[in-house]
Amino acid sequence: MSELVRFGISAEKGLLDKFDCLMRERGHTNRSKAFSDLVRQELVKKEWIEGREVAGAIIMIYDHHKRELVNKLMDIQHDFNKIIMSTQHIHLDHDNCLEIIAIKGASAEAEKLADALKGVKGVKHTTLGMSSTGREI
Amino acid sequence: MSELVRFGISAEKGLLDKFDCLMRERGHTNRSKAFSDLVRQELVKKEWIEGREVAGAIIMIYDHHKRELVNKLMDIQHDFNKIIMSTQHIHLDHDNCLEIIAIKGASAEAEKLADALKGVKGVKHTTLGMSSTGREI
Amino acid sequence: MSELVRFGISAEKGLLDKFDCLMRERGHTNRSKAFSDLVRQELVKKEWIEGREVAGAIIMIYDHHKRELVNKLMDIQHDFNKIIMSTQHIHLDHDNCLEIIAIKGASAEAEKLADALKGVKGVKHTTLGMSSTGREI
Amino acid sequence: MSELVRFGISAEKGLLDKFDCLMRERGHTNRSKAFSDLVRQELVKKEWIEGREVAGAIIMIYDHHKRELVNKLMDIQHDFNKIIMSTQHIHLDHDNCLEIIAIKGASAEAEKLADALKGVKGVKHTTLGMSSTGREI
Repeated sequence: MSELVRFGISAEKGLLDKFDCLMRERGHTNRSKAFSDLVRQELVKKEWIEGREVAGAIIMIYDHHKRELVNKLMDIQHDFNKIIMSTQHIHLDHDNCLEIIAIKGASAEAEKLADALKGVKGVKHTTLGMSSTGREI
Repeated sequence: MSELVRFGISAEKGLLDKFDCLMRERGHTNRSKAFSDLVRQELVKKEWIEGREVAGAIIMIYDHHKRELVNKLMDIQHDFNKIIMSTQHIHLDHDNCLEIIAIKGASAEAEKLADALKGVKGVKHTTLGMSSTGREI
Repeated sequence: MSELVRFGISAEKGLLDKFDCLMRERGHTNRSKAFSDLVRQELVKKEWIEGREVAGAIIMIYDHHKRELVNKLMDIQHDFNKIIMSTQHIHLDHDNCLEIIAIKGASAEAEKLADALKGVKGVKHTTLGMSSTGREI
Repeated sequence: MSELVRFGISAEKGLLDKFDCLMRERGHTNRSKAFSDLVRQELVKKEWIEGREVAGAIIMIYDHHKRELVNKLMDIQHDFNKIIMSTQHIHLDHDNCLEIIAIKGASAEAEKLADALKGVKGVKHTTLGMSSTGREI
């Protein structure tokens, strides 16, 4: 963690009041923390767009009854073993599984993996939760 | 415009450097302005979600050769005349028109209008550019 | 406009019912149109990501009382005259203007222009409505 | 799983070619699967907007050295134990942790939990990966 620096910001009073309001609604109480969060949000978007090393998770819903599905998902995950750190599997109901794959690596690879999983018959929905390794933010 | 107030923010030096960098890349030079912009961006999202009065534009691409299309678009726009302020029409090529409809009104009405236009045969793409009346931000 | 082709799709009955429902809610009645719309939506996203020639609009809210603002906006727009087709200006209230700039050109240029306008003191919010020239969709 | 039904779709040849192209680029080979995926994507968005029961994951990066952080995160998670199914924790480097919380419950509750976690000092970034229970899609 780098040292803290303090600096001044000018803003219209009306806007600042709304900022404070927004913070309180979200349960936050600290302008400095809220400022840093807004900045980090922009930096994480940039890491993904620029193809930097990122972290995040692929969230996937599938019907495990589909023939061959589990084997195919396993094969694809092994092809991308360099960016997969761990997986979490939840039996949502008799048919549906929620599988969450924690990833760390180049953003383009993460997107390729999400696409490959999405293509498998029986996979109903995938979404790529984009976060950061935290090192640069 | 309300009066300006000045206040202090603490942030990690590394993060602040990256913020300054991000600003410069986008051609901005002023932390106070950049801070206010990040806040306003959040407030505009909130105005749309909460169904407040908003402003913006519906951007639409269509092929004007489709039978009845121009009349249908006109009819729909008249049904929503209360939220339409003006339109801009550009002949992109022999077939394609770009039409931009400036809107101001309840966010739900704007979304309904965008959906109605999208449903017309010959309309290839619509997008709703979400901005603000500026009064509350 | 290219010729129409007809092809078959298989889907689970439950999913198809929900699709029909979603269409009706949005006032659409035609599966073929709804299918083409979903595809075009993906193609437009791709045109922007890949830096292709696109069309769209920059939507901007500003307070015209800010010193020098109008001149600066004019200067920036002239620097980007190759991608600006026309503008629409609306006086929202005593202070706030809504300006909508119709653009056509490389997606990266459009993003640069949006950033440059956003950086001007007095500009409260900009958003880039991403659409297409229609030629490739 | 409900029965399969087959139906016809008409589309312009040029558009269909692009659709096939897009599918192949993403490693998919089946128009019916790709159609169902586009529909499900819309349905999942709708489930979140309408406040239905959803599933997904909160992805969080934090610096575990911050005082009291781990206890606070634990307390918050216990307050929301009804929607948390399991968590996955990865030590990214000496400072940064990636924590992924699998959730199932009302979309508004999931958003509240994500906000509460984001407010804790030391949490650098949170993102809410929005998926579905799979039951209705």
